[in-house]
Amino acid sequence: MAKPKGFEKPAGVRDYLPRAVTKLRKIENDVLHCMSRWGYRQMITPTLEYYDTVGVASSTSDQKLYKLLNNRGQALVLRSEMTAPVARVVSSLLKDEPLPLRLSYHANVFRAIEEEAGREAEFYQTGVELVGDDSPEADAEVVALAIASLQAAGVKSFKIAIGHVGFLDGLFQEAVSGLPQAQEELKSHLLSRDYVAFRETLRRLELSEAQKQELDGLLRLRGGKEICGQALELSNHPLARASIEHLCKVWEVLVAYGVSQHVLIDLTMIGDFSYYTGMTFEGYAAELGFPVCSGGRYDNLLQQFGRPIPSTGFSLKTNRILDGVSGLPEEEELPILVQYDALRRQEGLTEAARLRTEGHAVVTRLASGPEELKTVKRLDADTIEAEGERYGEIYTFVSFVSEHG
Amino acid sequence: MAKPKGFEKPAGVRDYLPRAVTKLRKIENDVLHCMSRWGYRQMITPTLEYYDTVGVASSTSDQKLYKLLNNRGQALVLRSEMTAPVARVVSSLLKDEPLPLRLSYHANVFRAIEEEAGREAEFYQTGVELVGDDSPEADAEVVALAIASLQAAGVKSFKIAIGHVGFLDGLFQEAVSGLPQAQEELKSHLLSRDYVAFRETLRRLELSEAQKQELDGLLRLRGGKEICGQALELSNHPLARASIEHLCKVWEVLVAYGVSQHVLIDLTMIGDFSYYTGMTFEGYAAELGFPVCSGGRYDNLLQQFGRPIPSTGFSLKTNRILDGVSGLPEEEELPILVQYDALRRQEGLTEAARLRTEGHAVVTRLASGPEELKTVKRLDADTIEAEGERYGEIYTFVSFVSEHG
Repeated sequence: MAKPKGFEKPAGVRDYLPRAVTKLRKIENDVLHCMSRWGYRQMITPTLEYYDTVGVASSTSDQKLYKLLNNRGQALVLRSEMTAPVARVVSSLLKDEPLPLRLSYHANVFRAIEEEAGREAEFYQTGVELVGDDSPEADAEVVALAIASLQAAGVKSFKIAIGHVGFLDGLFQEAVSGLPQAQEELKSHLLSRDYVAFRETLRRLELSEAQKQELDGLLRLRGGKEICGQALELSNHPLARASIEHLCKVWEVLVAYGVSQHVLIDLTMIGDFSYYTGMTFEGYAAELGFPVCSGGRYDNLLQQFGRPIPSTGFSLKTNRILDGVSGLPEEEELPILVQYDALRRQEGLTEAARLRTEGHAVVTRLASGPEELKTVKRLDADTIEAEGERYGEIYTFVSFVSEHG
Repeated sequence: MAKPKGFEKPAGVRDYLPRAVTKLRKIENDVLHCMSRWGYRQMITPTLEYYDTVGVASSTSDQKLYKLLNNRGQALVLRSEMTAPVARVVSSLLKDEPLPLRLSYHANVFRAIEEEAGREAEFYQTGVELVGDDSPEADAEVVALAIASLQAAGVKSFKIAIGHVGFLDGLFQEAVSGLPQAQEELKSHLLSRDYVAFRETLRRLELSEAQKQELDGLLRLRGGKEICGQALELSNHPLARASIEHLCKVWEVLVAYGVSQHVLIDLTMIGDFSYYTGMTFEGYAAELGFPVCSGGRYDNLLQQFGRPIPSTGFSLKTNRILDGVSGLPEEEELPILVQYDALRRQEGLTEAARLRTEGHAVVTRLASGPEELKTVKRLDADTIEAEGERYGEIYTFVSFVSEHG
């Protein structure tokens, strides 16, 4: 295999130049600030975790995990998401903290397989976990906070689709009972939002016409509050009905938050993490063709870490927001150039320090001899325009008296 | 090998709980803000780099690199420092930018072997690179900025020791010529600051008494400006003399910056990176027994990435500053609790939103039925003190009229 060239970096990872960093940092800071005003406190966990604990619990498929061995021969992973690491900490360092816990994070996460498909192998997520509260109130809180976070990130127009794992599970248990493989197939079509293949599979199954209509009716369960009523007509399964009733209560709370105009109910939605147990949701920006946030309830994850308590949360797909959301990047202030010769160095550096105290960005430059002084002079006169692209203002401290002086 | 327990994390990595994150983030923001006022613009590079490029160039010893393979079978490393990645970007994406370039970063870096010794396998560095300027002015700028950065990080009392790789190289070439192994041995004693072993080695060497005295004299070359004169007396080697003359000019500029009281010259100092070619420096905090920053000139590193230009820079050892620097952590504002019953939910949530707009951290809680209302009541009366530890203020919106009402 050919060695990589000196300037190359691995596929699927990226460099962020200053302008992109300014934008990324602004999203990060504004979103974390929003989360802190909702009482969520920030955590940082390590990049490296044990494969056997967080790696397995993270519900990222095995082939997508970056794995390596440490010096003791233990299998490690680069974290693939933040929910499992936070669950580990909640079950250890934070085990005596009163519930509910509200935690936030901004972190880079890793997916090994993505680079093959030209997708990102390392990307950022900014999110929260609300631990120890299984009420509709808690589900609504994270949806309302996701909305506030997207707004803080500068996403102007978006919709949050909410669904419920329990409704689908109940419906399938009722209508496709005893056919686990068919259930999986139908769910996987829903996950990839391939409704044509869903109907295809449905047609092939040996089910009564009534059962087929019931399942086909699922595809129409996308809309506002009215969907709750339609869903209750579609299934008599207790789990399905309880799930819908829960979702109705969540909707009520979202109305009280005054954010229901951003929300739609989509009962065809399956969250992309296998550990979801209840309400799940995804956010779509008008200007982008893919989700900008996703979340849901995961009431069984924490027991894997020895602390069985209910939790819910979400994460923004920060990179997609960075890349996809239009809006002017912050106009950066150009730095001031302070240039001086050796004799007036102290004066120049003192002025630079004073300007920095005032909050300006200042770069300094020595024009050390007569030759350089000519450069300084030329720069002041002729090339001021070219230099003007780099500097907002130019201050000159030279003892040399130029012909312009 | 026993599987790790569910709540365990790998040795050498850590979780940062909210209080520590607040402190770490404050250091990060304050230092990056300081660097931006000096005209340094922030970059982010990937966690994963090619072993054959950045891995090899980074000058971290091979056994300290975390290595893994990607799906294409290419050897990757977790970055062990930021200078080599920044050099890669300067030689590729930034190759047409006018020089000098001023770049900053805050990043986590990885060292595989450290975990065995109970040291950190993942830690933070906050630093800068000044690319394309080999003048004493540039060396002084990064030292002055290191001082400003330590001050911004809250380190109150510290010293920066500056030395020069060229002086040691010249002195050894002159006094221990033809004995490369002895040179390496002497340098390694200097690196570990083991002056006893240095004299031990010196005694064993077959050198003239004059040569031995010359080398022994090196150990006294630690102090202020006067060291430059003493060093010039010690060696006639052109490289050694040129290095000292350069250092004298750096000192002059540091005087003009008004920071020379923080600096001492230590010609026994060897930077811990093999790519250093000129001035090197380390910062020591009064309250800590180990360096809190290190830096130096690396004029040959960029040619490994195809762009031979001189550079200098430094990084703060951010974790050491976080752990070691006393001073009160920011007193965090306790959140306000807004609690309500179902009937007054909208009122409660609207008030919460208003308080957040005013900049307060607010958590909300539903007291949903008569049972819960009793809790609310009790909380208002008896347990207010216990709750007071979690909340700065409590606002209650209930339609239930309590006996206290």
